[in-house]
Amino acid sequence: MEGCGEEEQVKLLGAAKSPFTARVRMALALKGIHYEFIEEDIHNKSELLLKSNPVHKKIPVLIHSGKYVCESMIIVQYIEEAWGNKAPNLMPKDPYDRAIARFWVAFIEDKFAQSVLGVFNGQGEQQQKAAEESVANFLLLEEALSGKAYFGGDEIGLVDISLGGLLVFIKMLEKVTNLVLIDAERMPVLSAWVDRFSEADGVKDVLPDRAKIFEFISGWRAKLT
Amino acid sequence: MEGCGEEEQVKLLGAAKSPFTARVRMALALKGIHYEFIEEDIHNKSELLLKSNPVHKKIPVLIHSGKYVCESMIIVQYIEEAWGNKAPNLMPKDPYDRAIARFWVAFIEDKFAQSVLGVFNGQGEQQQKAAEESVANFLLLEEALSGKAYFGGDEIGLVDISLGGLLVFIKMLEKVTNLVLIDAERMPVLSAWVDRFSEADGVKDVLPDRAKIFEFISGWRAKLT
Repeated sequence: MEGCGEEEQVKLLGAAKSPFTARVRMALALKGIHYEFIEEDIHNKSELLLKSNPVHKKIPVLIHSGKYVCESMIIVQYIEEAWGNKAPNLMPKDPYDRAIARFWVAFIEDKFAQSVLGVFNGQGEQQQKAAEESVANFLLLEEALSGKAYFGGDEIGLVDISLGGLLVFIKMLEKVTNLVLIDAERMPVLSAWVDRFSEADGVKDVLPDRAKIFEFISGWRAKLT
Repeated sequence: MEGCGEEEQVKLLGAAKSPFTARVRMALALKGIHYEFIEEDIHNKSELLLKSNPVHKKIPVLIHSGKYVCESMIIVQYIEEAWGNKAPNLMPKDPYDRAIARFWVAFIEDKFAQSVLGVFNGQGEQQQKAAEESVANFLLLEEALSGKAYFGGDEIGLVDISLGGLLVFIKMLEKVTNLVLIDAERMPVLSAWVDRFSEADGVKDVLPDRAKIFEFISGWRAKLT
């Protein structure tokens, strides 16, 4: 029974409240790929996690046909390529469009994530500065999204998943800190995208639980003071 | 004259001593792509740089058919895809092998580069710690390279270019700081790779000038004290 052997199974090692795990769940759901979800206790890492991601020891890890793929956006690209015949395409076909998608993914991973983490970890003036940087970064994304339903065009793709996995975290971070990061007045296109993306099939069912993320961020911020 | 119009020209905005520019020059040379090199003064950024990379305002930028592609490893992937019919292939074809290549590129860009930058910028104990982290990261690369001529197998690929662009910088950093980062005894495979890579066609002619990099690092370190 080709394709039905145990080694063909897909497993995802992750955590329900992890934004990075959410990215992978979105890609798997959008492609309609069945998988077993294995909840990892990040305070007590399993042998399987240590074995499957010895360099970073971090979730998420995709296990496909007994092979391990690590790092959320690398996993999403792997899913796109390993199940390339399954719609939707998460990457455009044109080399230049692909470069643009990778550019924004790298921006979200580096510059953007740093600014949001500054809000998550910072206090007082330092946090205020991080919030201003976050807003400036969101304004760049507003511009990148201009005139489109999703970053790649009409369908959800790599950039949407990259930013979208972080959405619940960002919304709850705004709530806990009373800071506005996604400013609906200055970012009408992005705000509409947030609603559109959050309600999309393949996304809405795998979004992390808002209450649990709120609790996680509150707890973290309480420990900082 | 299809393919010969001015808009089909390839230009590279970079700096001769930039390790990131070196990566792109390697990819272009390996693929045998002719291009015009435009030396950018990073202390007095040109209008063209500000226009072509408004988000990061950083070199290198590839200009192809009037379109701008930014960020060295994104440019290298673009070159691979836009000139996909030109040998050699800089990326493997198999989705899992591609994920592994992307994993090591991300490792080099993030964890590895941070540790090397710590040696470049650090003093005393802090620098010592960064050197130890660099060595630990090199040992992981030693393991990843085990049994192979290049990271992807028999030919130079994405991971080789990613690490290889930084080589002259790392060798000169060792010389300026008197710290050993690539330890030939503990890293025989990597040390052999350094020699093999540095002498390869498409690489040796575009390696940054050792004396200029030495001078740059010395000047930088002198300013830190």
